[in-house]
Amino acid sequence: MCPNAPGSCPRGYPMRKVAVVAGGLSRWGVRKASWRELVQEAGKAVLDDAPDIGKKEIDSLFVGAASPDRLAFQCHVAPLVADMVGVYPTRMMARTEMACASGQAAIRHGWLAIASGMSEVALCLGVEKMNLPDMREAQSTMTAVLDREWDAVHGASAPPFFAMCAQHHMLHYGTTRHQLSLVSEKNHGYSATNPYAHFQKPVTAAKVEKSMMVAPPLRLFDCSGITDGAAAVILASEDVAGKLTDTPVWILGSGQCASGNNSGNWKSLDSWQSMREAARTAYESAGITERDIDIAEVHDCFTISEIIAYEELGFCKKGEGGRFIEEGQSRIGGKVAVNTRGGLLGCGHPLGATGIAQVIEVYEQMLSKVPPSRQVPDPMVGITHNLSGAANVHSMLVLGRDA
Amino acid sequence: MCPNAPGSCPRGYPMRKVAVVAGGLSRWGVRKASWRELVQEAGKAVLDDAPDIGKKEIDSLFVGAASPDRLAFQCHVAPLVADMVGVYPTRMMARTEMACASGQAAIRHGWLAIASGMSEVALCLGVEKMNLPDMREAQSTMTAVLDREWDAVHGASAPPFFAMCAQHHMLHYGTTRHQLSLVSEKNHGYSATNPYAHFQKPVTAAKVEKSMMVAPPLRLFDCSGITDGAAAVILASEDVAGKLTDTPVWILGSGQCASGNNSGNWKSLDSWQSMREAARTAYESAGITERDIDIAEVHDCFTISEIIAYEELGFCKKGEGGRFIEEGQSRIGGKVAVNTRGGLLGCGHPLGATGIAQVIEVYEQMLSKVPPSRQVPDPMVGITHNLSGAANVHSMLVLGRDA
Repeated sequence: MCPNAPGSCPRGYPMRKVAVVAGGLSRWGVRKASWRELVQEAGKAVLDDAPDIGKKEIDSLFVGAASPDRLAFQCHVAPLVADMVGVYPTRMMARTEMACASGQAAIRHGWLAIASGMSEVALCLGVEKMNLPDMREAQSTMTAVLDREWDAVHGASAPPFFAMCAQHHMLHYGTTRHQLSLVSEKNHGYSATNPYAHFQKPVTAAKVEKSMMVAPPLRLFDCSGITDGAAAVILASEDVAGKLTDTPVWILGSGQCASGNNSGNWKSLDSWQSMREAARTAYESAGITERDIDIAEVHDCFTISEIIAYEELGFCKKGEGGRFIEEGQSRIGGKVAVNTRGGLLGCGHPLGATGIAQVIEVYEQMLSKVPPSRQVPDPMVGITHNLSGAANVHSMLVLGRDA
Repeated sequence: MCPNAPGSCPRGYPMRKVAVVAGGLSRWGVRKASWRELVQEAGKAVLDDAPDIGKKEIDSLFVGAASPDRLAFQCHVAPLVADMVGVYPTRMMARTEMACASGQAAIRHGWLAIASGMSEVALCLGVEKMNLPDMREAQSTMTAVLDREWDAVHGASAPPFFAMCAQHHMLHYGTTRHQLSLVSEKNHGYSATNPYAHFQKPVTAAKVEKSMMVAPPLRLFDCSGITDGAAAVILASEDVAGKLTDTPVWILGSGQCASGNNSGNWKSLDSWQSMREAARTAYESAGITERDIDIAEVHDCFTISEIIAYEELGFCKKGEGGRFIEEGQSRIGGKVAVNTRGGLLGCGHPLGATGIAQVIEVYEQMLSKVPPSRQVPDPMVGITHNLSGAANVHSMLVLGRDA
């Protein structure tokens, strides 16, 4: 453990402790539900998970949503979510947008609102409605998540960009097609246990390797889905959390690092320095090292992303991510259990909801509320990780419970 | 003065003190500049205003932008702004969206990031590029700022909504057409002194009353413009601010209140209860009363908004806002100087930039950096106010300098 007190900022300033005290999800998938109905589903679920919190106690609201402007033709969505859920925040309210990391951004902002003393109880809700009658809207919006004028206009939308990362990783480190497939097999195996997941059938490595080519070497089952969904957590100050529960799950620390926006800023496609920096800050602020981590929810938008994540998060040496999955080290019972809810590959990726669903998984794992088949034995420390844009911005949270 | 310590949260928890230490604007108007070029103009201006702050010291970035998704076909804009300005935040980075209050949201989040101890120096930049080859894009985006499914589809976009507010105020309180015109005359008079403003010509009340009807009783010069622009401030912790300047301008407090999203939630169109609540929280958290306020930047998206603001902010009794402008009480030399930069009516309203430009005006007034013709004598306490949506969400900041 590093010498910083848990819950302190990276510079050691004492912040108020903040706990996750409730979580709730909508069902994820290709939904007939509208954007608003997804919000209502997750809003009801999180309030049902917190019967002792009155709606009036929720004094702040942060909405993680990447592009409701384009996908639901609606902006100013924070007060709209307040209406849909029936809360009327009196302290802080805003939408936080960080593309694929918008959900985690909502939690980081909720955390700061409480840590600063401004807020006592914050609702953080993430949502995205991506399946529309005209699917070109989702596709074109996804190009606007990258640097549209420098990257996307040249065809570097997400699948080809991550395909290039995979090609480099295979070339430099000998990562194999089969190792990529094993990530997909593992995560689809876990999502088969998750009734909220978009994809609830196991997928074998062989099936991954026979699936449609998207951008070489990435095939259909190497890619996360176009998914509708919402997720919400309630955060509370130490005072409030102490009244609600004997088993609070604390936010211990956080980290974020960017190395520019467009892919031209990258020195390397297979070595993600900003992810290492974000992890270092997160671990230091939480007073942990990578060896303390029992469970990790990482941003497997593509199979290669999870393999690189093993390395940059310090779970294995650089270049050994392929072997890490092959040895089963990222499965339950291995060195660290990764993406036990099924990840983005198995659950789908409704942009604003993903970062919040990841925190719910860690929270429920720590309270032993997940199905037994995917329960990690007695997890004490968990992390969640989101990347956004061309894998150049990384955001992380560290969560933990009392011994 | 109320008993709370300045800089404390509404509940009295001691937060770190945060100062505005620099401000910079792009020129506002119908600009040929792109969204990115507007960002660069304001970014350069704010860095030029802070020669002693190295780019590496800026550890956080908050981007206020209402809908770059629709207006610039780009989301994930925070790291893009980092690239354009040349900063690489290592603590907190996100876009904050609250429609017309997005700029102030960026400042409120920057404030919390520093107040909590997470950040030392934060760049808060607001921007909107609203004039596009096809102006229908700006018009349709503005309908998405309101509740599009409940209000906007019935034609209740901003001008007709505020026109209804004006009709009710005239009916209930006897507010006159001429009193509305005087707000426009005052603010265009001030914007004529502001080289960054969209509209730099004085407008007489007679001219307002002869201008094109938009939505009765509101005419063209009762309405703020469709404007391109950007604005940026740098916030710093007390430690950093103390090294940079002998005259820090502090953020003393803040308030925010929502009464639902769609206009059906309103009990009254001319009595804005959530604005009164936001003001009360802001004053209490800052340890001031309305009598302490020397300068106020209020959200005059329409002339009627400023008249109602006089009342809800406590500058005059309910229903006497019309008389307040007629008596010259909101001019420099009156009870409180309102919208000395020219307001939204005179400067235009690039949604994400407005809330930040307002803070720059208060900051520059306190440092006697504005043109002498609009300098308020020795202001000690200033407020900024933004409304968003159908005037049902109100956000406020209180700023002050040391005696």
